[in-house]
This record gives sequence, structure tokens and C-alpha cells, in this order.
Amino acid sequence: MATMKKTSLSWRVGRHPARSATPTAWMPATVPGAVQLDWAHAEEWPPYWQGENFRAYDGLEDFYWTYEARLEFLDLAEDERLFFVCGGVDYHSEVVLNGKVLLEQEGMYAPLEVELTGARNGDTLQVIVHPAPKSRPAPPDRDQANSSCKPAVSYGWDFHPRLIPLGIWQETGLEIRQASHLRTVVLDYALTDDFSSATLSLQVALSQPIKGGLRWTLLSPLGEIVFIEEQPTGPDQTFHLQSSVAKPQLWWPHDQGDPALHILRVELLDASGNTLDSHEQRVGFRRVRLVMAPDQWKWPNVFPLTRSHPPITLEINGRSIFAKGANWVSPEIFPGLLARETYVTQLNLAKSAHMNLLRLWGGAPAQKKAFYDLCDELGLMIWQEFPLACNFYADTPAYLRVLDSESRALIAKLKPHPSLVLWCGGNELFNHWSRMTDQSLALRLLGSNCYQLDPARPFLPTSPVGGMAHGHYIFRDPKTGEESWSMFQRSHNTAYCEFGSASPASIEVLREIIPESELFPPKPVGSWLAHHAFGVWQPTSHLYLDVQEYYFGPPENLEQLVERGQLLQSEGYKGLYEEARRQKPVASMALCWCLNEPWPTAANNNLIAWPSRPKPALAAVGASCRPLLASARIRKFVWNEGEIFDPELWWLNDAPHAIPPGKMEARLETADGQRYPLLTWEAPPLEANTNQAGPHLRWKIPNLGNERFDLVLSTPDQPEAESRYTLLFRAAQRAETATTTVMNTVVV
Amino acid sequence: MATMKKTSLSWRVGRHPARSATPTAWMPATVPGAVQLDWAHAEEWPPYWQGENFRAYDGLEDFYWTYEARLEFLDLAEDERLFFVCGGVDYHSEVVLNGKVLLEQEGMYAPLEVELTGARNGDTLQVIVHPAPKSRPAPPDRDQANSSCKPAVSYGWDFHPRLIPLGIWQETGLEIRQASHLRTVVLDYALTDDFSSATLSLQVALSQPIKGGLRWTLLSPLGEIVFIEEQPTGPDQTFHLQSSVAKPQLWWPHDQGDPALHILRVELLDASGNTLDSHEQRVGFRRVRLVMAPDQWKWPNVFPLTRSHPPITLEINGRSIFAKGANWVSPEIFPGLLARETYVTQLNLAKSAHMNLLRLWGGAPAQKKAFYDLCDELGLMIWQEFPLACNFYADTPAYLRVLDSESRALIAKLKPHPSLVLWCGGNELFNHWSRMTDQSLALRLLGSNCYQLDPARPFLPTSPVGGMAHGHYIFRDPKTGEESWSMFQRSHNTAYCEFGSASPASIEVLREIIPESELFPPKPVGSWLAHHAFGVWQPTSHLYLDVQEYYFGPPENLEQLVERGQLLQSEGYKGLYEEARRQKPVASMALCWCLNEPWPTAANNNLIAWPSRPKPALAAVGASCRPLLASARIRKFVWNEGEIFDPELWWLNDAPHAIPPGKMEARLETADGQRYPLLTWEAPPLEANTNQAGPHLRWKIPNLGNERFDLVLSTPDQPEAESRYTLLFRAAQRAETATTTVMNTVVV
Repeated sequence: MATMKKTSLSWRVGRHPARSATPTAWMPATVPGAVQLDWAHAEEWPPYWQGENFRAYDGLEDFYWTYEARLEFLDLAEDERLFFVCGGVDYHSEVVLNGKVLLEQEGMYAPLEVELTGARNGDTLQVIVHPAPKSRPAPPDRDQANSSCKPAVSYGWDFHPRLIPLGIWQETGLEIRQASHLRTVVLDYALTDDFSSATLSLQVALSQPIKGGLRWTLLSPLGEIVFIEEQPTGPDQTFHLQSSVAKPQLWWPHDQGDPALHILRVELLDASGNTLDSHEQRVGFRRVRLVMAPDQWKWPNVFPLTRSHPPITLEINGRSIFAKGANWVSPEIFPGLLARETYVTQLNLAKSAHMNLLRLWGGAPAQKKAFYDLCDELGLMIWQEFPLACNFYADTPAYLRVLDSESRALIAKLKPHPSLVLWCGGNELFNHWSRMTDQSLALRLLGSNCYQLDPARPFLPTSPVGGMAHGHYIFRDPKTGEESWSMFQRSHNTAYCEFGSASPASIEVLREIIPESELFPPKPVGSWLAHHAFGVWQPTSHLYLDVQEYYFGPPENLEQLVERGQLLQSEGYKGLYEEARRQKPVASMALCWCLNEPWPTAANNNLIAWPSRPKPALAAVGASCRPLLASARIRKFVWNEGEIFDPELWWLNDAPHAIPPGKMEARLETADGQRYPLLTWEAPPLEANTNQAGPHLRWKIPNLGNERFDLVLSTPDQPEAESRYTLLFRAAQRAETATTTVMNTVVV
Repeated sequence: MATMKKTSLSWRVGRHPARSATPTAWMPATVPGAVQLDWAHAEEWPPYWQGENFRAYDGLEDFYWTYEARLEFLDLAEDERLFFVCGGVDYHSEVVLNGKVLLEQEGMYAPLEVELTGARNGDTLQVIVHPAPKSRPAPPDRDQANSSCKPAVSYGWDFHPRLIPLGIWQETGLEIRQASHLRTVVLDYALTDDFSSATLSLQVALSQPIKGGLRWTLLSPLGEIVFIEEQPTGPDQTFHLQSSVAKPQLWWPHDQGDPALHILRVELLDASGNTLDSHEQRVGFRRVRLVMAPDQWKWPNVFPLTRSHPPITLEINGRSIFAKGANWVSPEIFPGLLARETYVTQLNLAKSAHMNLLRLWGGAPAQKKAFYDLCDELGLMIWQEFPLACNFYADTPAYLRVLDSESRALIAKLKPHPSLVLWCGGNELFNHWSRMTDQSLALRLLGSNCYQLDPARPFLPTSPVGGMAHGHYIFRDPKTGEESWSMFQRSHNTAYCEFGSASPASIEVLREIIPESELFPPKPVGSWLAHHAFGVWQPTSHLYLDVQEYYFGPPENLEQLVERGQLLQSEGYKGLYEEARRQKPVASMALCWCLNEPWPTAANNNLIAWPSRPKPALAAVGASCRPLLASARIRKFVWNEGEIFDPELWWLNDAPHAIPPGKMEARLETADGQRYPLLTWEAPPLEANTNQAGPHLRWKIPNLGNERFDLVLSTPDQPEAESRYTLLFRAAQRAETATTTVMNTVVV
């Protein structure tokens, strides 16, 4: 139906040391892509993700790069116009026609558009890419990113090598459009308080006035026409259309209902009713708010009196939802490589693990459109951050100008996606390593743009704000001896938006990225070091051999090291996700750090290894995120013979329906098949989206005769809710101190 | 120089029950003023502030009121235009010419302007005022104000009767202007980091283009020309002029330097260089920021980790300042009565009490221009709130539209004032009695407007935010037995923005407002009740006879009641102001609730009684706010014979200069002239704007033989810093329990 014609261009690329110079050699360019990938391909470099090969890319970030293509097929009809259109150049670019600069732009998110009507076949089109932005030349660290909207992660992070991509990263080509075409189409809607109807408000801007008409059509999720309306266009260039929909099918996150998507079609018609241009987008009707947890207004209650914590509970269509999920970091170092297939695999893995929210962390780039489309379809909620992370972004006019245009572009691009439920200024900006505050102009600008352009969506200046918390990222803190389970159990936060439990990568991944000669034992040099097993954030992170050896002693081989490390990660995450859930409704969010990774690490907190390989912990997290779950609050990981084993039993229900009464049976199991029944709890019925605390078990541990044992919570009436926790046992001769003798009793 | 001609109008006013009706009788109207005052004058009602007379005004708020005037002297030259100009109508109004509605507006802050060119002598101009806005008809409480920008205090507060003013409250009249005149003039400036120069940016909009010129002149505080620049005007209607000033004399709050004011003059010239229109405003060059207190980034320091508190320390021209002051409530019930003379008196009283910051509380109306002009001149800093207070202002489009125009009008009006250092969304909105949050659209709107129109000035969404605190408002909490001194001493807040210590009004005031027959003993009925002595906020507030009797027993007469109550207020406030100061730099603000009052209360937390009569506590607060102060942290108010008297001694310095070493001598004095020397502290030198903790005194109290005694801190080297605290003594037979015997020692 659209009469727009699109043409791709055939690009080559070359580098030059200064803006005034020109390339002395050219290479074939893949667009979208990255100049470094084109260079590496031409030079036949080995993969950047193996060993320490990435170090070869160091110098490339400081060159200018010119993409060049010849225009072809430019025969335009009289009422046609030619445009060069590019979804995004990373990062600072110029568009040049036959040597004349037509556009200069800083920022990777604002699309570039230049009218080329009048250009001739054979004309030379260039996109000149400037060197990576740096606020100071050295040292090479993330502070260099503190005056630009370039994702800070590229400057080096504890899971990302120093490698700063440059180049055209989004779809790019020529478009032939009618002289009068749709410039912008913006839909807003509002649902009535009972969700029984929606009022739609459509803002349309044309490139130039035309005597014709605007037709807009709404199709239901089943493809039926909900309405089709038309109005004449005359001398105006902008139009405001309104309509309403009775009983719209609502969009829900997948664990609360169906993610129903309508389709909106807008057509520009000429006087004869022919379609000159058209626009199509999906529409998910839903209302999102951040609301206070019940009773949270009671605090504080002591004079002098400060404020109550800000709200962080996601309410969708009037229903408060416990958000379970993870931090999403870009799954590629080079955004030009981001592919729909990767998104399909990883988002389905997240959904299968019962996640309903992904936080798109501000250190990494925002994703390509396919990502948000898939989240809309899958019913996965998105928290999107702007490109600020762990830095002090100062109030300089030049930076604020770029942030203004970049944020406006991101808001315009992502506003139509119902999966997007939260804007956020960026990561950890109100902590001492960033030192930004509520008064920082960058954050006031972002708040203002979000309010002006997208007021129906909540906005947070950063994460964490008051009541929310990040961390810890360690199974056991060697300084205090405290385990992460207990850190959560003594906390009363409203949202746990980052917490980590690390493990080594799987054997298969390690063999791919680490030369055989370095593999075992791992040492803090070479490829283990380069792939983040040592000396990132903490001296022993992310491999944490010290933590592993505290529990198990030194590993005998790589297989044992990986198995033990992955067990700690799995059990660590289970204890944290479930504790956050047990704190519902005061807490309403549990997002681990992190879901995925942009290249293969040797050790990391992630659940999915690059490119898309699940670690065992993904299944463990999936188990802990099941909507209905028998759960145990366990104080610690190691239990000694003669000690009182004292977990608290809970029923956790995040599902939108009630659960009938049923039994929960607790028992211990050892690897050699011994079973120790502990108790049977006759659990009451459970309301929708509600937890129920159960008995506090107390049971004196005999000699189990195994290094490991499982606590099993069996739920014969709801078999899908059964849980299993693996713990360590130490026989009496290894026990530190015998505790006082207590009879085996159950405290309900 | 200005060629604008102004004409006042002669108004009459009448009331009618419906918009469609017309007044059946007319009364003379005072403009600016209020319809209720015109009515009361015509009806010869007794003063509203005596006894319970205000109750007669109850019904007036629900009428429509029409002001009417005849146009006169309208002979215009060809290039002249006639405008009706009104600074503000309280609250919802229409401007009508010969029966035709020319303008309808909701909101008291946005000025009204209607071009009347073409009107004839004798035409009838009307301003129709709608009934007071109410979100629901009953009950008559402040919730009725939650959908409008009407100051909530008028709907009844614990110091304000229910009385909702209506009418024209600002200057109003006709203006004859040249066809081309200045529409808006907006000056922005930025200071370099070392304050050695300012760049000025002037935005000018004309009513219509003219071939002529724009001249702008900056005069120094001494009246010397800093620059005079001119540029031609042509076909454009808007202009952007830039200039710079080297070494500008800076504006400072009075206790840190001189409040230097430059003058900016902008003139519109015709082709011959004649002035067609001119604009003049004062300019105070200063940079204001909210900054973190030193070391505050260290907290929190435990995983899971939340944010650091937001900054609240005022930094002026690079210097962190401890803000001392009070909450300013409008000194009149009727804003039309606000007079420059009242401002002169009360602002000078505040300055004399060493206050440097006034918080213009959001429950009361913003003030007339003279207020801000005086603060500029006196070097008093202003924290200005928008009209939201203690209510849930919902996200309704109609309310947001009015808030948008009202806030834009306030920002435009107040932006030029250097004394204004902080915008704030309103009072106590993030507490359970308001239930607004960071996500409330009203506050997102205000944040956005402040950022867009006035980004160089800090913005708070409300008070308190995290770290800041309000209260307590009671000398001794009867529920817990804790005194307000100790509440502050156990707190670690960043700013104490409201705290109260109540007292009865002086005898003179009480005799004016309470009929002789009711005067003593006070009872919770009639005038004592109506004037807030009982049953407001707490059953016994604000007279707090229970608290007074706890310390002194029942008063024998009114004089004794007043003396004891005013002593408690004075000593209460001293302990709170000084404790906040002792907590510097973690704390950086101490603002009592409240400075003044809009009518004469019988008991209140205020320091200045209506209309402008200081209570004794004003002098006590002034003593505690002296820049250099010998101060004692005293745990409690009553001391028993045999107890260990254990104040901590401090030197407090808020002055911008250092203090040499000196002695501080502590002694006790009784009313009958006994003196007990306690210790002499050889204090070290003190840096500018810095405190110094001194000895922790410990001294066993003998029988002092008096009900009261004074702790005196004498400072012979800095006599202006001497302090005196009055405390209560109870001899052994009245002592509750003897404490353990400790030798008189000094812990340094």
C-alpha cells in the first residue's frame, strides 16, 4: 500500500587520520555494521572474542572513517522527492554529497534524513564518521564517556573489553517519497478508570499541505476493523484526529494475561483517494503506573519526619505486579551486529524463565526496533534507561544539546511500544562513584522531555532511588563473612534492581575463548584476565576462586571448578529472587545482574552466555520465578551435624488467580537416596497475587553422610510448585561449634 | 522615559447567585482588594479578625461577583493601542466589554491583558469573578482545594480561619501603548566558574515589527554604565542579544556580603531614535546551586545499597551557606491587602534576627512584587513554592492546564529576582496525608516548566524530600514524654525546614481579639477556639496548657500564662535552631514554622503576631541565629538537685571570616543573683563558616533555691557571641530519682 520506494546503497569505507584527509585505501563495507568489523574483515584478523585478540582494535577508535557510495536509479517523477535516510550512525557523523556537507550530527539514536532531490546518478554520497568521543585523551576508562551520549560500556567495564564501536549501525538507504508525505505520526491514548474504553488522539504532520484526506484505521488483535475514519486535508500541515474504542482488549505482561496488540494504520490520500503514503504501528492498550506498596505510607512515623519512599511497584491495568527479571545488556559489542534472531532466542529464554521485566541498563546502547517489537509480542515489560551510567555528566551546554536530541529521538522511537513501562535517566547516578544529583541538568532535561513527550509513562531519574537497592554481587563477602542470602533477609527495600551471583562460563565456552595452555588452573593473567575472571571490581571477581574454595576446597580440574561455581551461582540466585518475592508487597521487583553478555566472558554474573547459550543458573532462576512456588527462607548455605536446621516455609503466588488449600511437605534428600521427612504443612487457600508465610521449621541435623543435601518442598496438590534447594553438610568432626540442643519442633 | 500611559478605573461591584444573573445592587469597590472587603464595608460589618466575626463571611465564597467600570479618556493617536491590564484576579474570572466576553481565565497569578483598541468612551467594562473553586461541595475543608491553584490555606488551616478571598488583588487599569511595543523581555546570564565574568543573554519579543532599534543598558550598583549597546530592528519580531560583563559585583545574602543590584534597561526605539517603550529590571549576579554536604557521599555504605540523600545545602557564588530562617505565610488573609509597608516591617525584623532564608510555603499565596524587590535589596534568600500543600492533586487535564499557566506566570514574574534561590513544588506532598509521589503529573509538570524556563535555579518537588525533615511542633510530646530538643539531638537530617514551638499571643493581642468575658481562664470554645488556641492539629494545640502545666502547674492569671508560654516558645526555639546549627555541615538549614501569621491568633508557633508585632521568641531566635555564637547542647529543660548537668559547649560560626582563639566561660546564674562558675574553655581559632565542638561539661547540681536558672556562656574576647539559656530547677524533695554520683569533671 505504501508508495514509498526504498533503495539500498553499495558502500565502501576507508580511514583517515584527520577530518581534512581522505582515505588512501578502501574496503568493502557492511551496512549496518561497524568500521572496525570492515577493517578486521579486510585485514583477516582473527575473531575479537577469542583470547586477547580484541587488543588489536585499540587504535581504531581514534580515526576518522568515510563511507562512500554512488547514487543510482534516481529517475524521479515530478511529484517525487529523494531522501537519504539512516536509522543511526555511531557516533558523530556528517553526510556529504559531492564534497558538500549537508548535515552534521552528534549522537547514535537520532535518525539522519537529508533530502537529495536534484542529485544525479553517479553523485558521490559520503558518511564521515568522527573518532570516538572522549572527554579527555587518557587514561582509557569510562570517565572518557562522561561528556557524550556514547554508551559508557564500550570504554571498558567489568564484563566488557575496551572496544568502542563506530559506524553506521542502523538500516540506511535512499527513499523516494511523494512530495506530500507523512512526516510524523504520534498516537496517544487514555483509558477510562474502569478500562472500559480508550480515547485515541492522533497527531499527524505532513511534509507539505495537500488537498486530499487522512484515513486512519484501527484493527483488533484478530484483524477486525475497530474503526476506520477519514477526514479531508486542506491548507494545513498538521492535524489532530480523535476517536474512541469501547471495551478495548488490553495488553498484559505474559504472566498476567495476553499481550494483545491492535494495529493502527494511517494513510495520506490524494484528491482521488489514492494512497500517497502510509504508516502502520501496533497499539497495546494498557495503563502503567508506579504505585506505593500497601502500608508504605505509614513510614516514616517519627518526628522530625522525612518523606515516604518513592513508589516503584508496577501497576498494569490497575493490578500491582511483582516484577521478576534481569538486567539486559546489549548482546553484542557492536550494535550493528544486533540481530532479530538473537533477540528471539534470548527473549524467549527470559520468558521461559518466568521473567516479566527487563531493565535495559543505561551503560549499554538502546536496542534495535525488533527487540521492542518482540517484547510487545511476548508480553515482556521493558525498563529503558537513557545513555548515562556510573559517571558524572556535567551541566555543559554542548552535552545537554546532544542529550536533548538523543533523548527526544529515543522517546519518539519507543513511545509506541506497550512493553515499555518505565523511562529511567541512567544507572547509579546518585551514588558516590557518579556524584550526580536530582539537580543535575541532564536529569532535569530527561525528566522534562519525558513529561512533555510521553507523560503517561513513569520516569525515574536513576536507579536506585530511595528505598530501592543495588547489590550485593557476591555469594559470600570475604570481608564480613556474610552470605548474600542473609544480606537480603535483613533488608527492607522496595525493589532489588541489581544483584549478582557469579559463575564460570561452561566448559564449552571456556575452551573456545581461552587457549588450551592457559585453561587450568586459571591464573590472573592472559585470557582469563582479559575475559573478566580476575581483577574486575574485586581482585577475585568474577571467578571468585576464594569463595569457592571456602566452601569446597581447591578444585581438582576445570570440570569440578565449573560445576561448583555454577552450583553457587544457581543456589545464590534462588535465595535472592525468592527472598525478594517473600518481601512482597513491600518489595515489588527482583532483577538480577545480568541476563546476557556482549561477548564471551570466562566468569560473570550472567545467565546466558554469548552468543545465546544458557548457563545452568537460568533454569534455577526460572524455577524461583514460577508464578506459584513453594519457597524456603534458609539462613545460610552450610549446615553442621547437630545444628538446628530452621528454614521458614512460604507459599508464593504471583499469578492472577487464587490457589486452593493444599499440602506442602518438607524433606531432606541426599545424593545416595536417603530421605528425611521434616513436616507437612496444611496450607490455607491463597489469594491471587498474594503470598502466605508458613511454618518456621526447626529440626536437628543428624549425620547425613554426604557433602551435599537437598531441601525438597513437595506440593502434591500443585505439583508445578515443588522446590528443591541444594545445601552443604559438614559432619560433626568438621563442625565449628555445636549449637544448643533444641527439640525438633515446628513453629507455625 | 517610558511612553506608556496608565489610567486607573473607577470600579463598583455587586454579587449575583448565578453567572447568568446580574447584580441587583452595587457597592463601591476598592481595587486591588477583595469582594468580601467591599461587601463588609458596605454592610458595616465589624472587623473579621475580632472574636468570631469571620463566620459572617461564610456564604460569600459561593457567589458570582461583577466588577464594573466605565471607560474614559480613550482618545488614541493612530499609532497607539489601548489595553486593559490586570496583575491578577482571584480566582476564576472573565473580562467583558459591553456584554461580550473577551477573556476567561482560571488562576490568580497569570496576569490578564485584553486589547481594547476601538472601544469608546462610556463603554462598560466588567470583570466577573466566579465562586471559589471547590472540588466537592462539602465538607468545608482543605480537600476542596485539591483541584485548583487556589491557595489551600484559605479553606481553613490550623492558624487560618475558613475564609476564601475573591476579587481583583493586583494593580489593574488601562494602558495606552505604541503599536509596536515590548511584549516580553527575558534576561539570562551565566557566570564563569571563577565568577570573574558574566555572559548575558537577552530575549526580546515585540508586539509587531518596526524599523528602529533596541538599546540595552546595564548600570552598576553605583549607577555607572557598565555597557550600553544598540542593534537595529527590522522585519523580525523576536531578538536575541548577547553581551558580557567583566568582574561583575556579585549579589550576596546579607550575612555573607552585599546584595549588589545592577539595573538593566531595555528600550525600543523608532527610526529617529525616539523611545517607544522601555523596560527596567534589577539584576543580581549570583550563582545558586544545591550541593551535597561534605562526606555525605559516604552514605549509604551497606549492600544492598540505595542512593545517597539529595543535596539541600545552598551554595551561593561557590560558598556553602547555612540557611537560617523561617516559613513565611502570607501576612494577610486577603492578598489584595498585602502592602509594601507590611513587607518592609516584617522583612527587616527577619533580617535583624539574622535570618537569611524565608520559605514561601505552598499553602499560602505567592506575594506581591514589592516583597521580592525588598528581599533582593535586603539580601534575604527566598524559597518559593507553587500553590500545592497537604493535598492529593490528581492528574486531571483541567487542573494540569491551570497549573501550567499559573506556574509559567509565576516563573516569568519571579525569575529576575536574585533573592529567589529555590523553586519547590509544594508542601509535604510525599507524606501520607497528601499521597502524591515523584510520578504525580503536577510535579512532573512543575519540574519541566522550571527546567525549560529557569534551568539555572534549583527545583525541589516538595519539602521534605529524602534526608530533610519537618517537625516536631511541640515543646514536649505528651505521648512519649520526649522534648523537642532531644528529638533534634537524636536526628541526622540534612535540613530542618519546619519545626515549631508555640506560645500564646501577647496580652495586648489577646485583649483585642477575645472578648473580656472569655479571657481567663481560656476554654476550648468561642474566640479562643476560633483563634486556634485549642483543637487544631492536636486537642491542646496551639495553647498547650497541658505542656505548660507539666512544667509550671496551673497559671494563676492571664499574665502568668502568657509569660510561661512565651518562655517555653523562646527556649524551645533556641534549642532547635542551635542544634540544627551544631549539626552543620550534615545539616544546612533551619527554618522554623512560622515567621508570621495572616490574622491574630490566640496561640501559634509564629514569631511575629498580626499585623507586625514581634513576640519575645523573635529576639530569642535572633540570638540563636547570630553568625558567631557560643552554644550549649542541653539534653532537657528540667534539672533536679543532685543530677549531673552535662551540656556540650560549642562555637558556631556562620560568618564568612575566621575567629581568633578565645575564652568561653560557662556559669549558672539564678534570679536572686547567685553565680556558679562551671568551667573556662580555651577555644582554638575558628575557620570561616565552621563550627567547633568543645568540652562536654559535667557538674553536679546543688540546691539552686530558685525555680529557674540560667546557663550563661560568656565570651569576653567576642562579647557579641555570649549566650544565655533559661532552665528549670527542682529541689531534691521534688526530684524524680537521684542519678548516680559523678565527680564534677570536664570531658574535652
